[in-house]
Amino acid sequence: MATLRTAPTLADVQEARQRLLGIAEETPIYLSETFSRRCGREVRLKAENLQRTGSFKVRGAVNKLSTLSPEERAAGAVAASAGNHGQAVAWAARELGMSATIYVPQAAPMAKVEACRNYGAHTVMTGAFFEDALTAAEQHVEESGGTFIHPYEDQLIIAGQGTIGLELAEQVPDMGTVLVPIGGGGLSMGVATALRAVRPDVRIVGVQAGIDGYTIADGIAVKIPSDFTMPLLEDLLDDIVAVTDEEISEAIVLLLERAKLVVEGAGAVGVAALLSGRAGGTGTAVPILSGGNIDPTMLISVMRHGLTVAGRYLVVRTQLSDQPGELIKLLSLVAEERGNVIAVEHHREGMNIAVTQTEVELTLITRDEEHCRTLLEAMAERGYVVERLG
Amino acid sequence: MATLRTAPTLADVQEARQRLLGIAEETPIYLSETFSRRCGREVRLKAENLQRTGSFKVRGAVNKLSTLSPEERAAGAVAASAGNHGQAVAWAARELGMSATIYVPQAAPMAKVEACRNYGAHTVMTGAFFEDALTAAEQHVEESGGTFIHPYEDQLIIAGQGTIGLELAEQVPDMGTVLVPIGGGGLSMGVATALRAVRPDVRIVGVQAGIDGYTIADGIAVKIPSDFTMPLLEDLLDDIVAVTDEEISEAIVLLLERAKLVVEGAGAVGVAALLSGRAGGTGTAVPILSGGNIDPTMLISVMRHGLTVAGRYLVVRTQLSDQPGELIKLLSLVAEERGNVIAVEHHREGMNIAVTQTEVELTLITRDEEHCRTLLEAMAERGYVVERLG
Repeated sequence: MATLRTAPTLADVQEARQRLLGIAEETPIYLSETFSRRCGREVRLKAENLQRTGSFKVRGAVNKLSTLSPEERAAGAVAASAGNHGQAVAWAARELGMSATIYVPQAAPMAKVEACRNYGAHTVMTGAFFEDALTAAEQHVEESGGTFIHPYEDQLIIAGQGTIGLELAEQVPDMGTVLVPIGGGGLSMGVATALRAVRPDVRIVGVQAGIDGYTIADGIAVKIPSDFTMPLLEDLLDDIVAVTDEEISEAIVLLLERAKLVVEGAGAVGVAALLSGRAGGTGTAVPILSGGNIDPTMLISVMRHGLTVAGRYLVVRTQLSDQPGELIKLLSLVAEERGNVIAVEHHREGMNIAVTQTEVELTLITRDEEHCRTLLEAMAERGYVVERLG
Repeated sequence: MATLRTAPTLADVQEARQRLLGIAEETPIYLSETFSRRCGREVRLKAENLQRTGSFKVRGAVNKLSTLSPEERAAGAVAASAGNHGQAVAWAARELGMSATIYVPQAAPMAKVEACRNYGAHTVMTGAFFEDALTAAEQHVEESGGTFIHPYEDQLIIAGQGTIGLELAEQVPDMGTVLVPIGGGGLSMGVATALRAVRPDVRIVGVQAGIDGYTIADGIAVKIPSDFTMPLLEDLLDDIVAVTDEEISEAIVLLLERAKLVVEGAGAVGVAALLSGRAGGTGTAVPILSGGNIDPTMLISVMRHGLTVAGRYLVVRTQLSDQPGELIKLLSLVAEERGNVIAVEHHREGMNIAVTQTEVELTLITRDEEHCRTLLEAMAERGYVVERLG
């Protein structure tokens, strides 16, 4: 629908900053001792996940809607998005006294639709796929004369996102490297435009989720920069690197455990690139945590996976003779070794289970990988044949 | 060991603030739209969970250690704590160029012990209970001439925590009510001392975890103010209220989902009091999120519970005839209704399972309570006898 034809300039970003004053937040910078130690350089997190609506998207939306004429404002804003963009347009419209209509597919997570509604938007759930919502939104624009707000193919949207770059220049005078997520390219182009102009010495690295990144970094992995945007980005950025789902997942868990911040997959790619040694450059590194809107069920899965990798969960399977007291004996051993049982599964039938045997699967909370090994050894010493499942 | 005999004054807190400059963070204030809407008044969160080491405790520790003589500094700091206090003493000692020895029980979570070690402290794991660690710490003090740092029965510790009150007075000029967790009483007495002096009009509410609060708010529920402290607190505070584990749990999940902040149980009691309508007073309410050091396995449990209550998980049990294809039929029905299966358990034996039947337990991710009901109805319509387990 919309196509970007002109790249924004520093002046556009500076104007955007004026429009955002008193509406969007200037988000804090947070020195992380854990990440600094792990990366061997000072790491300062740009906590854009604490932005209003939980993502950077409000910056572009506020800038765009602020420039509409009174007639356009009266006709309302229209967007097709069940995610950060939709919530940002809903929120910005309300802040500026406009109406907003947000089209989302029927299967959109209720929490996101609720968020749009709570910001006062009219939400329409339609069709099975995103494309259906987009078609309906376009039709609504034709009928209502409302303004369709594209998530990134728009000079004003990009200029709005770029205000993060101006904030960084002031907040971290000694920054050496900035890491910015690349989705559709709006955030990265905006930030790079601003920083190239005011801090030409800073290394700017764009980070993409790899092709396996579909599930975790859903905010960026489904979008790619257009044929107009990509060459501009390649010119503006010093480097473009990719991170894997596994690396993003580790970054999310560390941000949660050590920095006390909830960050969505797309927002954690900068930290993932730093931890995996792919950021390059020298001096203070500043990953932009672009958003915090991760689905809580996804967050639980990511955390469980992270804890398993860190040896904080142990899942074992063993066989017991099918007599009273055998399970208690095993559980007593686990208790002696300070394993914390959270699940016991009992199987009495199966291809590999003898008739006099019963199979038990235990899920334990453990302290670390060493603790896991101690537990496994203690079980082996008492004669259990143990298979480790996780 | 240590006993508080004199309460700190505003001057003590002001001196503490000078000593903390450039060492502890001035933590940000965060306007929460969700909490404001839910509570019908503006809610601004004091994000002390973003403090260095993840809790307010570094304020008191830095203040205390800063006042030691060169001889005392040379002999090192000693603490008995596997939690926020231990980490804060370890961190503050390193910042001030001192050594620290932290005694913890053998069963202390490895993550906490690791944190103390990463801050450069010598950690000693000893004994089964906290009292054993305390005894060992006292013995070490006698032998080494080191200074024992009490977590709250100390005027300088309390004055350090009180610096939060001075920050609040500047950061939220229009605040009407402050909510401060009560554990041992150090934080609450410090904050109340400062605010009573500089903002006598502000309502100050102390919040305790109820007697059922042992597990979730472990940072405060195991401590109670001393006989000297309690009457002072009752005098300084406008009200003291209690919240339940269930309320704390809901507050943790909302802070995570909506404010993108990881907050421990003890740090979430102020939000819990607000949400349950127990805060009283008028005007802008400011809960102090005192810390973010929640064990990740605990956080997962709390989140899962919160999601189940919100209808985001559905656990059902039903019986199928033991024939090929029956499970696929059930799962297809669930898929049609857009339930997202995360676990299937199969039981072929049991007191209530007929020989021709097999029992299946499904755990589904759902959108909301209405979605749960839709799924249950669809299963009933197709003839399944369904028992809802969660």
